[in-house]
Amino acid sequence: MNSKGRIFSGMRPTADRPHLGNMLGALSNWVKLQDEYECYFSVVDWHAMTTAYEDPSQIRNNIRQMTIDWISAGIDPQKSPVFVQSQVKEHAELHLLLSMLTPLGWLERCPTYKDQMKQLQNKDISTYGFLGYPVLMAADILLYRSTIVPVGEDQLPHIELCREIGRRFNYLYGEVFPIPKEILSKTPMLPGVDGRKMSKSYGNYIPMSASEEEIREKVKTMVTDPDRIKKTDPGHPDVCTVYAFKKIFDPENVAEVEAACKAGEIGCVACKKKMAQTLVDSLAHVREKRVELEKDLHLVDDILEEGAKRARKTAQETMQQVRDAIGLL
Amino acid sequence: MNSKGRIFSGMRPTADRPHLGNMLGALSNWVKLQDEYECYFSVVDWHAMTTAYEDPSQIRNNIRQMTIDWISAGIDPQKSPVFVQSQVKEHAELHLLLSMLTPLGWLERCPTYKDQMKQLQNKDISTYGFLGYPVLMAADILLYRSTIVPVGEDQLPHIELCREIGRRFNYLYGEVFPIPKEILSKTPMLPGVDGRKMSKSYGNYIPMSASEEEIREKVKTMVTDPDRIKKTDPGHPDVCTVYAFKKIFDPENVAEVEAACKAGEIGCVACKKKMAQTLVDSLAHVREKRVELEKDLHLVDDILEEGAKRARKTAQETMQQVRDAIGLL
Repeated sequence: MNSKGRIFSGMRPTADRPHLGNMLGALSNWVKLQDEYECYFSVVDWHAMTTAYEDPSQIRNNIRQMTIDWISAGIDPQKSPVFVQSQVKEHAELHLLLSMLTPLGWLERCPTYKDQMKQLQNKDISTYGFLGYPVLMAADILLYRSTIVPVGEDQLPHIELCREIGRRFNYLYGEVFPIPKEILSKTPMLPGVDGRKMSKSYGNYIPMSASEEEIREKVKTMVTDPDRIKKTDPGHPDVCTVYAFKKIFDPENVAEVEAACKAGEIGCVACKKKMAQTLVDSLAHVREKRVELEKDLHLVDDILEEGAKRARKTAQETMQQVRDAIGLL
Repeated sequence: MNSKGRIFSGMRPTADRPHLGNMLGALSNWVKLQDEYECYFSVVDWHAMTTAYEDPSQIRNNIRQMTIDWISAGIDPQKSPVFVQSQVKEHAELHLLLSMLTPLGWLERCPTYKDQMKQLQNKDISTYGFLGYPVLMAADILLYRSTIVPVGEDQLPHIELCREIGRRFNYLYGEVFPIPKEILSKTPMLPGVDGRKMSKSYGNYIPMSASEEEIREKVKTMVTDPDRIKKTDPGHPDVCTVYAFKKIFDPENVAEVEAACKAGEIGCVACKKKMAQTLVDSLAHVREKRVELEKDLHLVDDILEEGAKRARKTAQETMQQVRDAIGLL
């Protein structure tokens, strides 16, 4: 157990296959956190149901794929339990108990609630469960007596609600839950090959599990400084996509390349070749791990089963404390 | 297993000790039902939390007392599992899944919701959990794939919602739940000793577990026909409390006593003595059973544990079907 605190964090198994941008977001953050904290990483399938209840057909498959993504990106299930939320029924039990003490107004006034209702107008999400999304999220976090929650800016209102719910429980029944603090994930902005934000819908992304060939092809198409015609023209790295990748994937050599580019000493083609090789190298383990896991899906299932067992142990300890505090059997 | 269908029914462990009026209501109905149906009888402690979350200190003790009441009133835990709702976690799991597909409007428009909000103004029940009361009730009923629900008139809107939720699940994911039908419990109106409705607050009640002495004392104070001064005055049984009791507890001899009263052939004192003896006799087993169970609370705990085990078996079968239908793990 690590002494810096305990973390619960989850992702909904609704997304498409992740690209490098996603990986550098939450995932690489998790990879760092797992060495500093006691982490619980969960595929939150019940959360997926809040918006996907009308067509949940992809959830089951997405769960395995997401687990493979995590492990191949460097999450070590030996260090941190990796598990599926619905395999730990205590999430549902705590959600139900917290629902009793959560004022409706807190949920109705949650800024993300009305936002989402607008954004997802094509879906019928005016449901009881969707309104209760933050209660389920609070249950997830509090169930592990988490002290830290890594979040993006957009999730801050949910964390605030989680703290309010935890405080209210402690006030009514006695101290059971630590009140968790957020740490804002600093996500480096990774552009797509065309210089815009990397996004599935722009078609400018590099898949996390891209093949060597695919990586080299994609890097070749990267947009560089448009004012630089000849190799000897002084370059402007700030507008160059390759440079943006360099800062993230090869920080040790950034200064050198920046100087060479500005001095007109290195051409874009050579620079891209180096970048492609760097990417090929740094994604090699991701690719290999994925191939290995896809060959043996039982291994993935074993990881999830073992993770659920470990998560359940902590969850059951918490629920015992919760029931004792309330005075239930 | 009985062929007439399956029943789930529950009571909230919030009430005071039951009196004869309560016993003749739901309980004696259950005693009949247990021979005709496959019944699941549950002390619904999570439901109690919807209104008692601010002070749940009595719930734990009430659970045992309520179980003793049930068994001593004639519920046979061999025939029907008797268990505590929170011991079968599947209630919480199904509640969570049903919450995803339950439109908020169904709950907000439920006539009992606004009624209760008015009636319980001294309690702060504008909570997420209280709004979701009918979802939890639907989960309770559907979890056992019940075909029948015994209810009082006041519960009809909840049963209607339960059916709607079951239908919506079946529509979205395929047929899993039978759509349950209600049977309205016919509750004989038992007056208190003063002729008004038997009620704790009127102080006119006979406790279900009253001692022999207490029963005789209570019956002595029963209000009879005020116009009947002498034994030979013709009586008016319709306004007599003893007569009301007679109809319920000694139906075989009602006609005879009615005739004798109207003819002025039997006096109120004699009539009361007979009535007291009838009550003493018919409540003897209730009293004895209670004494026996109170001496050995482990027996009560064993009954609840065994009941939960049996309930869980059915509940887990249902949840397997539910998860398969939705496409969850």
